[in-house]
Amino acid sequence: MRMYDLIGKKKRGGALSREELHFMVSGFVEGSIPDYQMSAMLMAICFKGMAEEETVNLTLEMEYSGDRMDLSAIPGVKVDKHSTGGVGDKTTLVLAPIVAACGGRVAKMSGRGLGHTGGTLDKLESIPGLTTSLSGEDFFRVVRECGLAVVGQTGNMVPADKKLYALRDVTATIDCVPLIASSIMSKKLAAGSDAILLDVKTGSGAFMKTPEAARTLAEQMVRIGRAAGRRTEAFITNMDIPLGHAIGNALEVREAVEVLHGRGPEDLTEVCLTLASRMLVLGGCAEEENARARAEEAVRSGQALRKLAEMVHAQGGDEQYIFEPERLTVSPVRHEVCADADGYIACMDTEGIGIASMLLGAGRSRKEDTLDYGAGIILRRKRGQFVRTGEVLAELYTSEEGRLAAAEKEFRASLTLSEKEPEPEPLIYGTVRGSEGESA
Amino acid sequence: MRMYDLIGKKKRGGALSREELHFMVSGFVEGSIPDYQMSAMLMAICFKGMAEEETVNLTLEMEYSGDRMDLSAIPGVKVDKHSTGGVGDKTTLVLAPIVAACGGRVAKMSGRGLGHTGGTLDKLESIPGLTTSLSGEDFFRVVRECGLAVVGQTGNMVPADKKLYALRDVTATIDCVPLIASSIMSKKLAAGSDAILLDVKTGSGAFMKTPEAARTLAEQMVRIGRAAGRRTEAFITNMDIPLGHAIGNALEVREAVEVLHGRGPEDLTEVCLTLASRMLVLGGCAEEENARARAEEAVRSGQALRKLAEMVHAQGGDEQYIFEPERLTVSPVRHEVCADADGYIACMDTEGIGIASMLLGAGRSRKEDTLDYGAGIILRRKRGQFVRTGEVLAELYTSEEGRLAAAEKEFRASLTLSEKEPEPEPLIYGTVRGSEGESA
Repeated sequence: MRMYDLIGKKKRGGALSREELHFMVSGFVEGSIPDYQMSAMLMAICFKGMAEEETVNLTLEMEYSGDRMDLSAIPGVKVDKHSTGGVGDKTTLVLAPIVAACGGRVAKMSGRGLGHTGGTLDKLESIPGLTTSLSGEDFFRVVRECGLAVVGQTGNMVPADKKLYALRDVTATIDCVPLIASSIMSKKLAAGSDAILLDVKTGSGAFMKTPEAARTLAEQMVRIGRAAGRRTEAFITNMDIPLGHAIGNALEVREAVEVLHGRGPEDLTEVCLTLASRMLVLGGCAEEENARARAEEAVRSGQALRKLAEMVHAQGGDEQYIFEPERLTVSPVRHEVCADADGYIACMDTEGIGIASMLLGAGRSRKEDTLDYGAGIILRRKRGQFVRTGEVLAELYTSEEGRLAAAEKEFRASLTLSEKEPEPEPLIYGTVRGSEGESA
Repeated sequence: MRMYDLIGKKKRGGALSREELHFMVSGFVEGSIPDYQMSAMLMAICFKGMAEEETVNLTLEMEYSGDRMDLSAIPGVKVDKHSTGGVGDKTTLVLAPIVAACGGRVAKMSGRGLGHTGGTLDKLESIPGLTTSLSGEDFFRVVRECGLAVVGQTGNMVPADKKLYALRDVTATIDCVPLIASSIMSKKLAAGSDAILLDVKTGSGAFMKTPEAARTLAEQMVRIGRAAGRRTEAFITNMDIPLGHAIGNALEVREAVEVLHGRGPEDLTEVCLTLASRMLVLGGCAEEENARARAEEAVRSGQALRKLAEMVHAQGGDEQYIFEPERLTVSPVRHEVCADADGYIACMDTEGIGIASMLLGAGRSRKEDTLDYGAGIILRRKRGQFVRTGEVLAELYTSEEGRLAAAEKEFRASLTLSEKEPEPEPLIYGTVRGSEGESA
């Protein structure tokens, strides 16, 4: 078998067989297939796409390219959640404790933020003492004891994705649905959970700019998950507006904890309860009829909050910050951005707001950048609200005053004021529940 | 400027500007743009094509990527010819002497054969003593003294094409008209002639399988040549049948010399006189009305033959082989392939016949293979002829008896016999004379 022939086959629109994909993925990981052949293949895939079965097989070959988590030593159904990335998306910090409080098991591997999107690991590490680098043994122990743990990727998991993603990132081949779907799902499958709930974001702050594009990606991912024998479903949720009011690591932990205290912002609370309910159903912890009530009760009773505190403690952090989130340090330089005209906030460029937060020190433009955990943005007004000249739109926080100007400029450029009130947008566009397009 | 953005632009169907192409080609040659980015770009070009001006600019950037021949020290109009490669195509050996005999100047850089196609350098080197490795000074001297010389590429000419072609060759991005056109024309332009006649082959033994595809390539190449200020025209000629009867290096030299003796095969003679006449017009050596007569006279008078002998002598070879071509050594093992049924030869897979010749030792499957100069095939019957069982179809020549079986098998598989006489095909499909599609 020759990579040359596989490139030619794909270029003519053919579908690669399981054997061909095995040859390609294993050869690429080992180094016998050079980058320049793989990048030609990736570009051909961008133009010719992949068949359903082909995408599933690519994902499985990627999943098996390195170490895989065996979670069978943890009793119960393990439920995972994946967000395609957004701005102000702190749902994991709320969902995982709710699910654990209802008897589910969340053994979660998460990532760090890059560019305009944040990462759950960074958010958690803003809690003093907390570490996300646990040994496999400690990871299992924390999940068994607390019902949840959130750690960084360990071992040599899905090396095929690391190599492929690095190559796609420099060859303009990122925006290709089967490649995105196989990248995400290979990692989710290798992470070993029995059930996977996907939160596919759509809008100005998301990779998929339209609900239709998000649905296509969601359908492909659900199909892959089910083909691999995992209970998999997806929600398509709105990322035209940041979720909640807080953007930035410690600021987001504070807000997530507020939701668990029952006093969080409405949009964030609603998305968290909706997703958590579905995770309970997928994890066999609740029936469809009572899942929402169970999730609400876990919050009201304080059980979910205690679960998060247990996890923070078990991962080396000071759990008092969970009971008194206002103690989490916020960066000292505070600046109010005020409206310079009257009007409705018609449009928020959520990606731009994410970049503004990054410019304040809350995110990384390159992997090696260090974070200012207390930096970020508190939105005081959101899309659809009417503002008058001089009213505070947002508070910016940073440790370095020199960062304010660029961040404020980026933030202001991300807002569009209008005389007309904008049409409201749904928080959740729909779901994909599998069995060949059965979706609502 | 970033290569990443250029790949994205091409992927979306945009045309690269002259500045962008300069950045890309010079960066690739220097090594600052890696192979994996260029191969993604090449694949995107395969899908999205290139605009007319863009193809011209790419070619010019490639032309100027290394050394260029300055032929101004040679008086007169320098006329070049390029064939896109065929089987049994020994026209250069006939054309160049005719043009030189009529006062034109042919300072030709040629190539070696690979795969099923032969190369003019290999053919010439089957003449004992002859070298195609001349210094620039000697090359000029031979052209000045004899009116013609044929040498291998010298110096660091068109390094962009060498690197790009090597990459295309392993990434399934060879078959893309603007890339083929820019590859050929960048070398022709750098070789420095004032006028260029292109012989674009079409058919089973050619890269362009249909006359339409060949015309598209011819039009692009003529457009590039004219945009670069060179008199450029193209013929589209038939390669569904090998040209003449001889395939293999010494065998082809013999046959070419026979044409110059006025006793060559009809098809080869006709193509040579047609192309030579046009080279005379392009080179300003004859008017359209009398060019053919001048070319015929050059053969009849023996002047063209003497020109070839002069060149062979000047390049270190023994010119007696030109006057007595039957002295050129043919490989000792001779084998007749006989018809195993009655019928018309309906179809010759010319590529297959070229491969059969390669298997006998006349060509290379890899660059490092050595040649058996006397090996090859003499066709005794060609397309359209009726053969009876037992009649000789062809003679195979080789120095190694062990090569016969595979070559005969390949040769036989390349012939299709039929009860029906096939429709005759034209020898020449048409011409492209430039000024925006003015062609006949």
